[in-house]
Amino acid sequence: MKTRKILKIMLATLLAFFSTTALFAQETSSSTLASGIIDDQRYNRAIHIMAMLLIGFGFLMVFVRKYGRSALTATFLLVSTAIPMYIFAKSYGLFGYTHGEVVRLIFAEFGAASLLITAGAVLGRLKMPQYILLGLLFVPFYMFNEWVILSGGLGLIPAGAVVDTGGSIVIHAFGAIFGLGVALTMTTKQEFEKTIETDATSDRYSMLGSMMLWIFWPSFCAALVTPEQMPHTVVNVIIALCGSTLATYLFSVSLRKKISIADIANAALAGGVAIGSTCADASHTMALVIGILAGGLSTFGFAVIQSKQQKWMKLIDTCGVTNLHGLPGLMGGLAALPIIHGLNMGSQLSGIGLTIVIAFVAGMITGKILPIMGRKAEAYEDAEEFLDAE
Amino acid sequence: MKTRKILKIMLATLLAFFSTTALFAQETSSSTLASGIIDDQRYNRAIHIMAMLLIGFGFLMVFVRKYGRSALTATFLLVSTAIPMYIFAKSYGLFGYTHGEVVRLIFAEFGAASLLITAGAVLGRLKMPQYILLGLLFVPFYMFNEWVILSGGLGLIPAGAVVDTGGSIVIHAFGAIFGLGVALTMTTKQEFEKTIETDATSDRYSMLGSMMLWIFWPSFCAALVTPEQMPHTVVNVIIALCGSTLATYLFSVSLRKKISIADIANAALAGGVAIGSTCADASHTMALVIGILAGGLSTFGFAVIQSKQQKWMKLIDTCGVTNLHGLPGLMGGLAALPIIHGLNMGSQLSGIGLTIVIAFVAGMITGKILPIMGRKAEAYEDAEEFLDAE
Amino acid sequence: MKTRKILKIMLATLLAFFSTTALFAQETSSSTLASGIIDDQRYNRAIHIMAMLLIGFGFLMVFVRKYGRSALTATFLLVSTAIPMYIFAKSYGLFGYTHGEVVRLIFAEFGAASLLITAGAVLGRLKMPQYILLGLLFVPFYMFNEWVILSGGLGLIPAGAVVDTGGSIVIHAFGAIFGLGVALTMTTKQEFEKTIETDATSDRYSMLGSMMLWIFWPSFCAALVTPEQMPHTVVNVIIALCGSTLATYLFSVSLRKKISIADIANAALAGGVAIGSTCADASHTMALVIGILAGGLSTFGFAVIQSKQQKWMKLIDTCGVTNLHGLPGLMGGLAALPIIHGLNMGSQLSGIGLTIVIAFVAGMITGKILPIMGRKAEAYEDAEEFLDAE
Repeated sequence: MKTRKILKIMLATLLAFFSTTALFAQETSSSTLASGIIDDQRYNRAIHIMAMLLIGFGFLMVFVRKYGRSALTATFLLVSTAIPMYIFAKSYGLFGYTHGEVVRLIFAEFGAASLLITAGAVLGRLKMPQYILLGLLFVPFYMFNEWVILSGGLGLIPAGAVVDTGGSIVIHAFGAIFGLGVALTMTTKQEFEKTIETDATSDRYSMLGSMMLWIFWPSFCAALVTPEQMPHTVVNVIIALCGSTLATYLFSVSLRKKISIADIANAALAGGVAIGSTCADASHTMALVIGILAGGLSTFGFAVIQSKQQKWMKLIDTCGVTNLHGLPGLMGGLAALPIIHGLNMGSQLSGIGLTIVIAFVAGMITGKILPIMGRKAEAYEDAEEFLDAE
Repeated sequence: MKTRKILKIMLATLLAFFSTTALFAQETSSSTLASGIIDDQRYNRAIHIMAMLLIGFGFLMVFVRKYGRSALTATFLLVSTAIPMYIFAKSYGLFGYTHGEVVRLIFAEFGAASLLITAGAVLGRLKMPQYILLGLLFVPFYMFNEWVILSGGLGLIPAGAVVDTGGSIVIHAFGAIFGLGVALTMTTKQEFEKTIETDATSDRYSMLGSMMLWIFWPSFCAALVTPEQMPHTVVNVIIALCGSTLATYLFSVSLRKKISIADIANAALAGGVAIGSTCADASHTMALVIGILAGGLSTFGFAVIQSKQQKWMKLIDTCGVTNLHGLPGLMGGLAALPIIHGLNMGSQLSGIGLTIVIAFVAGMITGKILPIMGRKAEAYEDAEEFLDAE
Repeated sequence: MKTRKILKIMLATLLAFFSTTALFAQETSSSTLASGIIDDQRYNRAIHIMAMLLIGFGFLMVFVRKYGRSALTATFLLVSTAIPMYIFAKSYGLFGYTHGEVVRLIFAEFGAASLLITAGAVLGRLKMPQYILLGLLFVPFYMFNEWVILSGGLGLIPAGAVVDTGGSIVIHAFGAIFGLGVALTMTTKQEFEKTIETDATSDRYSMLGSMMLWIFWPSFCAALVTPEQMPHTVVNVIIALCGSTLATYLFSVSLRKKISIADIANAALAGGVAIGSTCADASHTMALVIGILAGGLSTFGFAVIQSKQQKWMKLIDTCGVTNLHGLPGLMGGLAALPIIHGLNMGSQLSGIGLTIVIAFVAGMITGKILPIMGRKAEAYEDAEEFLDAE
């Protein structure tokens, strides 16, 4: 009952907010042929990214055997909260304007990707309305960080000084660290004792999500590069992904004796995370090296660090976003230091440092707020909230 | 035996028909650079729509636990019947010519989408050859309606007077009402008593189909708009889908106490259905409102209307196409009345009314013809027609 | 232990090889607007093809019930080996240069597709490191054949004389025959006695892969045609696929009494294989005829030839690549003889003949080398190599 009341208030607030932005929603479009072509190229990237958000992140999270319906519904709700919220807020000029509807859509999708990463850290331990609330709290913090790091917000870092083409820092690391903050304040003792079950079907669904992310990752990184940069960028991303995929297999079998399919589904993508900052600038050989290192680092994270982290930080990171998006994201941001000629090293390091601080603090705050809607009684199970779920 | 004979006659007829059109099949293409660019933009939309037809509609229908192989095979057969039939008929000039091979392909895909909606109404109760026959009967009726409503056929409505950019009326409502007509004449008593079973795996497959449709819906609606209209159109469609997704969750949990995953998989898409007619013209805020209303209406349909409809109309609508495509489709067509400036209201209303009549009558006729190939003995089960199916 | 040592040597060799090519990796790109447009068009095709490689081929092979994790991991490893290897080798000038990073990527993907076909022949009977080794051995042979048949390598066939736009010969037939060669030297007696198990879930996953291939096949065939040829080419491919899909159903039910879902998942694609050589040139009606014949031939292969082939050739072709890629591929290459005006018939026949010889001999050699890494103890099962696999 209480939940539903809060939901109604949320929806009313949302609509009130949106209605004030109505004036800005329909813009004049003075497209010439050339801008029509660029818009169309970006549109195709935007749709590729949407496939990553829904089927990619969504099905990757279906590895939890009894929580598949919830993981997919949560994905739907998170995306449906974040994207209009970002678009309407930007039309309104919150944290700077973005010109062009397709460009704004792509930035909104980036925000949704980061939100899905955060949600991965606490997957299975929120009720559905809490995922919506998580989205409502996350998006303003995300937009604030994006504005500070990339657009010179607050005057801390010069606009354009941080190199992060494919979002290693502001999307991946931000989402992962935000998620850690949330998980830190939310993990209960009961959740510590509960095993997360998987089976052959949930594993294969998870691989579907993983492959969907792998396939469209080049469009994620090249969504906003110039047409001249695109070919080199996309081939770099693919080579980095190939490198992390091979390294994941080698490290998984070396560290565990047998292959863990969870390593494959996740760490194979670490090359995409880590190449983000330098995807337009690295040579193909450097891309391969970054991919191999990221895959190794991520697999090491899943195989060795994760269990230690749980004890040390007293938190459960359901999907291991620390290992897939956190460490490889930071690695990617740092990789710009030796690779990018003429980089402002101070700004790059400040951008990374600030992102860590903002994400972690914002995550902690969010984690304190979420429990006002109560707690999920039985973690990692559909049955509490879904009809006919076993 | 009898079935196979009919099939051979069907194939022979098909080939005879196609051979007469051979002369028209290879056209001269005097493409300039500009037309090459537009063709390519449309081609990408056409492929997105194909993903909706096969994986989208196909897997959405896999929610029937024991009928997955059949649902996917039926999808393959329906698409493979409708698309060449439409293309060859148009090359021949049936119900007007369409210029450009890619444009013709997109129109053929629209027809296939409408056919898949119709098939959803009787899913699980036709034998495989009956799905093919359904396609052969459906396509001419569909082309006739499209010609009357959009191209001034029979001189009833001026060409271009009905606004239906993304097909709320001529694709979604037509398919749903045609399906109702077929179901009305075909549902047996035995089928009334049989429960349609689902399970965790079939539900997750269904969500895959739903997400595939959601992702590529902007390309469906923007397939044939001008490059200038594209950005606003696609963002509208995405916002409408976000609205219907959030509303579906809220209405599902409000009306049923717990969430129905079938509501999520289906009604979340209602925003895409309803924004169809006005996707190029509505403001983003209006798109959000249309999406929320459509999601609410559709969920109300699944949760409340469907069981009453079954008793009242004495029919089973297997996939609930009335609630996903019928009501939201009509709502979308009507939404043009207040939204589109300078709309010819009489034409718009005539278009909606005529579509209802043509679809329903054609569906009833088709439902009378289909049983000449016999009836499926056991509804909703693969085993009758597939080897090694449990 | 031994396996891991060999792997480390492989990785070291790979890196050494790549480092020599570093100089060539970052090219100057003097893109004009026009070349930016063409690059972008090709990029979208390249991503479509990537979806075919990973989700398409990957999930099609998940039909083996207990080998799903392995099939998907193998797909990841095969693609991640083949693509960088091809790209770096071409940057280095091995078997001729290819200009343009996106074009090179597409050619690399074609090689990966052919490798996946080969792997399909021995699926379930290699250990993971052997799939990587298979890739390392396959790619040079593939590049050699491509160079000889299409680029005038060794001066045997004039460059451009063989018509094979969509790769019926050099991709599909080459991969299938190479796979036969490998299978011939590797199939053990134990493997002959073991049944390959499927179930409802693995069958539906397999249909997902099949549909993914079907949807994006037009982009595979039209990846490198001119913008003027694109519309006619893609419609031809779609019509051919529709033809083979309908024919597969008719032949499957005629030859077996009931439908085999394996026939549907595989032979429905035969039209895409067979139209490859002539996709840019055939009329729509010829495309339909080629599709119907290919679907019939392929289904006949699965239903009738396969069991005889196993006894006669003493080999197991796990995925039946002979029937899906071998026979329809050869048929497609031969279809060019009557269809293409002004075709150099001698060159076309030489191209087909040489491909058969090179693929078969190379496959036999590869099959002799692979067992140096040992043998998989239990065929078609994840449990030997994967943690927590039942």
